[in-house]
Amino acid sequence: MSNYFGDLKKVVFEGTQSTNPLAFRHYDAKKVILGKTMAEHLRFSACYWHNFCWNGYDIFGAGTFDRPWQRPGNEMDMAKMKADAAFDLFTKLGVNYYSFHDIDVAPQGNSIKEYVENMKVMMDVLGKKQDETGMKLMWGTANAFSHARYMSGAGSNPDPEVFAYAATQVFTAMNATHALGGENYVLWGGREGYETLLNTDLRQEREQLGRFFQMVVEHKHKIGFKGTILIEPKPAEPTKHQYDYDTATVYGFLKQFGLENEIKVNIEVNHATLAGHSFHHEIATAISLGLFGSIDANRGDAQLGWDTDQFPNSVEEWTPVMHDILKAGGFTTGGLMFDTKLRRQSIDPIDFFHAHIGGMDTCALALEKAASLIESDELSKSIAKRYAGWSTDFGKDVLAGNFSLESLAKHAISKELDPKHVSGAQERLENVINRHIYG
Amino acid sequence: MSNYFGDLKKVVFEGTQSTNPLAFRHYDAKKVILGKTMAEHLRFSACYWHNFCWNGYDIFGAGTFDRPWQRPGNEMDMAKMKADAAFDLFTKLGVNYYSFHDIDVAPQGNSIKEYVENMKVMMDVLGKKQDETGMKLMWGTANAFSHARYMSGAGSNPDPEVFAYAATQVFTAMNATHALGGENYVLWGGREGYETLLNTDLRQEREQLGRFFQMVVEHKHKIGFKGTILIEPKPAEPTKHQYDYDTATVYGFLKQFGLENEIKVNIEVNHATLAGHSFHHEIATAISLGLFGSIDANRGDAQLGWDTDQFPNSVEEWTPVMHDILKAGGFTTGGLMFDTKLRRQSIDPIDFFHAHIGGMDTCALALEKAASLIESDELSKSIAKRYAGWSTDFGKDVLAGNFSLESLAKHAISKELDPKHVSGAQERLENVINRHIYG
Amino acid sequence: MSNYFGDLKKVVFEGTQSTNPLAFRHYDAKKVILGKTMAEHLRFSACYWHNFCWNGYDIFGAGTFDRPWQRPGNEMDMAKMKADAAFDLFTKLGVNYYSFHDIDVAPQGNSIKEYVENMKVMMDVLGKKQDETGMKLMWGTANAFSHARYMSGAGSNPDPEVFAYAATQVFTAMNATHALGGENYVLWGGREGYETLLNTDLRQEREQLGRFFQMVVEHKHKIGFKGTILIEPKPAEPTKHQYDYDTATVYGFLKQFGLENEIKVNIEVNHATLAGHSFHHEIATAISLGLFGSIDANRGDAQLGWDTDQFPNSVEEWTPVMHDILKAGGFTTGGLMFDTKLRRQSIDPIDFFHAHIGGMDTCALALEKAASLIESDELSKSIAKRYAGWSTDFGKDVLAGNFSLESLAKHAISKELDPKHVSGAQERLENVINRHIYG
Amino acid sequence: MSNYFGDLKKVVFEGTQSTNPLAFRHYDAKKVILGKTMAEHLRFSACYWHNFCWNGYDIFGAGTFDRPWQRPGNEMDMAKMKADAAFDLFTKLGVNYYSFHDIDVAPQGNSIKEYVENMKVMMDVLGKKQDETGMKLMWGTANAFSHARYMSGAGSNPDPEVFAYAATQVFTAMNATHALGGENYVLWGGREGYETLLNTDLRQEREQLGRFFQMVVEHKHKIGFKGTILIEPKPAEPTKHQYDYDTATVYGFLKQFGLENEIKVNIEVNHATLAGHSFHHEIATAISLGLFGSIDANRGDAQLGWDTDQFPNSVEEWTPVMHDILKAGGFTTGGLMFDTKLRRQSIDPIDFFHAHIGGMDTCALALEKAASLIESDELSKSIAKRYAGWSTDFGKDVLAGNFSLESLAKHAISKELDPKHVSGAQERLENVINRHIYG
Ligand SMILES: [Co+2]
Ligand SMILES: [Co+2]
Ligand SMILES: [Co+2]
Ligand SMILES: [Co+2]
Ligand SMILES: [Co+2]
Ligand SMILES: [Co+2]
Ligand SMILES: [Co+2]
Ligand SMILES: [Co+2]
Repeated sequence: MSNYFGDLKKVVFEGTQSTNPLAFRHYDAKKVILGKTMAEHLRFSACYWHNFCWNGYDIFGAGTFDRPWQRPGNEMDMAKMKADAAFDLFTKLGVNYYSFHDIDVAPQGNSIKEYVENMKVMMDVLGKKQDETGMKLMWGTANAFSHARYMSGAGSNPDPEVFAYAATQVFTAMNATHALGGENYVLWGGREGYETLLNTDLRQEREQLGRFFQMVVEHKHKIGFKGTILIEPKPAEPTKHQYDYDTATVYGFLKQFGLENEIKVNIEVNHATLAGHSFHHEIATAISLGLFGSIDANRGDAQLGWDTDQFPNSVEEWTPVMHDILKAGGFTTGGLMFDTKLRRQSIDPIDFFHAHIGGMDTCALALEKAASLIESDELSKSIAKRYAGWSTDFGKDVLAGNFSLESLAKHAISKELDPKHVSGAQERLENVINRHIYG
Repeated sequence: MSNYFGDLKKVVFEGTQSTNPLAFRHYDAKKVILGKTMAEHLRFSACYWHNFCWNGYDIFGAGTFDRPWQRPGNEMDMAKMKADAAFDLFTKLGVNYYSFHDIDVAPQGNSIKEYVENMKVMMDVLGKKQDETGMKLMWGTANAFSHARYMSGAGSNPDPEVFAYAATQVFTAMNATHALGGENYVLWGGREGYETLLNTDLRQEREQLGRFFQMVVEHKHKIGFKGTILIEPKPAEPTKHQYDYDTATVYGFLKQFGLENEIKVNIEVNHATLAGHSFHHEIATAISLGLFGSIDANRGDAQLGWDTDQFPNSVEEWTPVMHDILKAGGFTTGGLMFDTKLRRQSIDPIDFFHAHIGGMDTCALALEKAASLIESDELSKSIAKRYAGWSTDFGKDVLAGNFSLESLAKHAISKELDPKHVSGAQERLENVINRHIYG
Repeated sequence: MSNYFGDLKKVVFEGTQSTNPLAFRHYDAKKVILGKTMAEHLRFSACYWHNFCWNGYDIFGAGTFDRPWQRPGNEMDMAKMKADAAFDLFTKLGVNYYSFHDIDVAPQGNSIKEYVENMKVMMDVLGKKQDETGMKLMWGTANAFSHARYMSGAGSNPDPEVFAYAATQVFTAMNATHALGGENYVLWGGREGYETLLNTDLRQEREQLGRFFQMVVEHKHKIGFKGTILIEPKPAEPTKHQYDYDTATVYGFLKQFGLENEIKVNIEVNHATLAGHSFHHEIATAISLGLFGSIDANRGDAQLGWDTDQFPNSVEEWTPVMHDILKAGGFTTGGLMFDTKLRRQSIDPIDFFHAHIGGMDTCALALEKAASLIESDELSKSIAKRYAGWSTDFGKDVLAGNFSLESLAKHAISKELDPKHVSGAQERLENVINRHIYG
Repeated sequence: MSNYFGDLKKVVFEGTQSTNPLAFRHYDAKKVILGKTMAEHLRFSACYWHNFCWNGYDIFGAGTFDRPWQRPGNEMDMAKMKADAAFDLFTKLGVNYYSFHDIDVAPQGNSIKEYVENMKVMMDVLGKKQDETGMKLMWGTANAFSHARYMSGAGSNPDPEVFAYAATQVFTAMNATHALGGENYVLWGGREGYETLLNTDLRQEREQLGRFFQMVVEHKHKIGFKGTILIEPKPAEPTKHQYDYDTATVYGFLKQFGLENEIKVNIEVNHATLAGHSFHHEIATAISLGLFGSIDANRGDAQLGWDTDQFPNSVEEWTPVMHDILKAGGFTTGGLMFDTKLRRQSIDPIDFFHAHIGGMDTCALALEKAASLIESDELSKSIAKRYAGWSTDFGKDVLAGNFSLESLAKHAISKELDPKHVSGAQERLENVINRHIYG
């Protein structure tokens, strides 16, 4: 058992009257909101990678964290020490789920065979950890972007042997996810993009990726995995342009390869904003396209052009998003996965606690505010009223295809239509949101 | 006949030895490049709107241009004076095409009937102008974004009567385009987007727009219009988010409504960069998806976050784009449409000439440099070599679907694959481009 | 007396238990916070320009608002009708201050003499309005950017006669501000920048502007104006680059011309974010440089690259800002001026009310949250502890200049210094803020 | 002697008729342009860090380069092997200068004493290398940002012992630079900024940095270093906000601490664009403020929000910049330092050659085009004409302070000034540039 967080106790809900910075003020796992507990709504997951594999390095400097399991030593021993610390943290945070890449948990080894072997050993370790702690696996994934072999892509690599290597990792990681009872499997195309169009065949790479995703879906069905396959959009970084730029782009991709009913999206807040969209936009778009799957809950920095993966802390940003998710029925297999990095200067074990507590309380508060909005039904009523014309016979006829361009034009001319513009009342609606947030 | 450009003569090609700033130095309409004349390759078009309808105002200030046809007066008289000036400019510039919105050329009037009537009169005027000058119509379009009635959208408006009004304009403008021998019809969704998600039903608006586009395509076939229907992507401005964000987004939209073989894209340089893409990216993406149609040739300002619509002046930016277009077979019905604004401080008639001459020479030079690249075949050979693995039996089998994820993983493990990463040689390829540009 | 807002009553504070959307929920003008009333702290001002001079046009479309005083008619009559409506709104909103540009309130006329004459007439009108309503003038300014003569700058214009024309407006507007008891005079350099470096002499334009600002300061002292001269930084728009880019840039400018003790900054939220800074950054920077003056309270859109001037609605954004302002002693002559535009689709008179109420309640709430932070002293204590080393003898010696580079290096080597890095605890501090906001 | 580049020969000028990709096509070191050789004008320097210390890692992946001197081994042996390879490359490229950070060339060791000792040994190594090769030192600098101790700043660190440690490095690196005949000493504030305002005292950190810079300047004079002290502005990355944001910000900083005549700026292209400015803007601003010192010649990616440090390849971007530099008298101690990274996928030794050759040819071509512009004097004449009014008696009087605001207003009114706006002719001037570039 790890001693890394030894003095730190399991975080409990103490409510807003408490002055304990290591307690939840808003996240009360068992509190019932709109018929489900907060835990059932929010389905929090913590991540293995940023928390346990990153040492605080950035592109201008070395690691700052000095975690014991990142020191020199036997790789498998270190992997086990890391797993001890990880499950200790997960348990103490009171998240019910965790998520990992294959090589977060198992050393990648010096050959494909070592990789497979290491994964086998570590899956046993994780399985036992899950049994001991009751922790569940939100999702697994394969890291097919960090190793030098993937520098020019995994599925989209110009070399089919790299494609095959990536397929091996995904095969292994999917099977592991299935064996561990994982509820989703995620595809993030870290190097699936281009650095320069001068050496890139876009059509070819698209075909490769399309086939890759089809193989993943076929394999899912073959092994009877009941979870959801998720693609995580990101516009750029590490590559100049990623093929899974944003939700709308992923939709077109899935349609091309007949996969729009097989794969959903895992929307990361920071990826939304890097793509030039609000987080709300990406969620609303995914819901409108039937693609909403899960969320990588974090935040970016509005002034920075890269993925900072900070912890969520804006109830204002999350409330309308939670509203839309609740209206769409809430999460099924997905949840709120903290794909979040401590700040490089937050080097103490206790900083893990401050960061996750802040993130969880933020999401819990937003859930409460959103539920209040839902109960008042103010937004939905307002929208329904705005589009009422489309429920008239005329509106229905137009949408049903009962008019041609010509017949509609003739109708407009003969009726001498002169429709008046109506206030969009944006500021009134913004006040509605704030009233539900701030009372 | 307009006297606005009275002293300015028709621009002729004088070559690089000339010191005349009002002559072409590079655009030699009849010069043959790769089997076609420059004019046939480039298919230049000038626009009506920025050139003749805009008075130099911006959001912080009044007009600066003082064009005679923008002064107070009888609207139809002014429209005719404007047409005189426009065709005078088009002719003097030596473009073979022009493009317009309905209300650029005809006053919108005070009722739908007046609009229809004005259009009828002005189509006769334009037809005669075309006959007199030999000028051809690159494309027509309808302005369904400037009038207050469209403030909340045209096809995506919450009010079906606004939808019908827009349909009337598109019906009228399509018919006019057809009658005038136009080679394309463009849809630009100036208000087809949202200002706030709080009052917006994304799914509903998407359905409306989908039906609108279907009606346009049906009408095209009904009237026997042989030109191309084009959508012009833009990410934002005037709305916060436009539904035709970029080429990849438009592709998904077209796939949803079964229109991917019916509609192509009109890519504007400045819209590409506002969407966070390079111009080259949008062109290469459109070609790879079979959607490439036409180009709004302009440029943005890399430091500004709005559509400046400046004239093209970068041979470096245009050369790889022209290379890809030539490789894809060149333009068919599309061309290079100068959707370009003079700078607000460029107030003299002669500034029209400097601006268009600069733009045309830039594109002509890029064509020559691109042709040199094509003839050397250096880029294509380099790309073919990079992807050679996909032409082996193994590569073909993978793409053909002869491997499952499992069989491919087993293959990789049993062969102990350990693919080596190979240089992408980006800097070498960049030098190739510069060698063709600068000798 | 205007009837434009006839049915709408003066907004009153009803508290959070009220369901009236036209009441304040949080802004209770007389409520005492840290020894001053909310009204004294916040010093709200409404603006003349966006509210009464803008008709809803944007660069892609015509006006949507149809205000009676913007219809055709005698200019002076319209100016008076506008003043009636303006003071009616100001009064009903319960702001204590208003702000204007010269030509917001008086027609600019067809000559410099007409301008002077119109200003004289309208100053009497405004003076009477102030007397009748008790409304006070937060600041006046001159619009030296909208007229075509200013297209290449006012103080920085290549033509000294334009400089002189601008000086006339500033002279007139400063005198008017003084006469009306205005508490500040603002300089916003709407065209003080460049469109292209190719025609610009940066050093020359800087000298011109420097002299212009010196003249303004000299005039202030000459007429005995006791208010504050403010520069409003903005990075771009309308020009490509504005010389008063941000607070740090303005500081360097003031230092060059010996004006750093004479002029302060008026920070606009949307200008901060367009400059690539957070609003908080600009405020903290201004305070640290002794330049903090006043605030144009609005917000931008994080996804858009232009000045949207929306109403403030983020308590989360404003709370740390209010904290810093309170710590720095609060406003003196400055205040919270709503330099805010209704959304183009918010066309109803009632939308003015929703928008301003939302903005005022947001700022009032942020004041309360910030006061709570101040009372707890948590941030200040945390910062003091972090920098404690600089209060030791060694730290003081270093800052006092008692070490040279050499003696300090020798000290470090001889002491074998090996300082350990200490957690910055960012997430803990972010939780502190949220605890004060959300309880 | 290193064998890393063994097969690759010294790059020579072969001119545009050559087809050798490893020859210069445009950079002819001895060619005389405007009275100086190209080598004298351009003063190329190669860097140690990106070329020899970076292994190709990024934040999502491991190194891709596998340089022999980066493998495990005795640190001092590796440092010498690295120096062998470095001087081999520098010599073969035909740059006359190189530049380094202290810990690029010498291992930082495990204590401050080891650091000092390692530096001493390696300075001897470098001195000998310089003697053998004739290579000269453009500039030295200290890396006070990569080690964990600097995570919260060096000069701006909350801990004065970290300040002292940084001072030791700067003391050592300045002395080394002086001893090796370096022509400049650079200060880049890699961690001199903040991650969050919540834990930051801006005024305190500014005071610390001001004192730090003063110590550097005092030390320069004390040791008789005749080179230039340079600050390298950067807006963000690695920190959220860097105190040396851009040239205008640095100017204000220097003015505050009385250093504006002691320190100049080293402008990096990619930092300019990250700050929201064009490269040209930063150069023109520095020249106009008397701060122009040197250039880190690279380029960013217009679509990416981080420092890509790619090699320059745009003659179009560099020509107006070179024009302004030539007009300002050219470089004195500064030069064109390639602060450039190979692309992570450019893993072969030959890629170093392609990249630097491309960069050097780009700058050489731009120099030629700029000289042509200078000789024609077209830009300068055009600017002089535009500002001619300021050379009249009236213009001179205004600038000389012979008018007050009041007397100028009275002058304007009595003369009934009504200045007309004059075309800025931007497009014409853009054509002038392109004519000089493309003939
Ligand atoms: Co993620
Ligand atoms: Co991320
Ligand atoms: Co366009
Ligand atoms: Co545009
Ligand atoms: Co403002
Ligand atoms: Co603004
Ligand atoms: Co640099
Ligand atoms: Co850089």
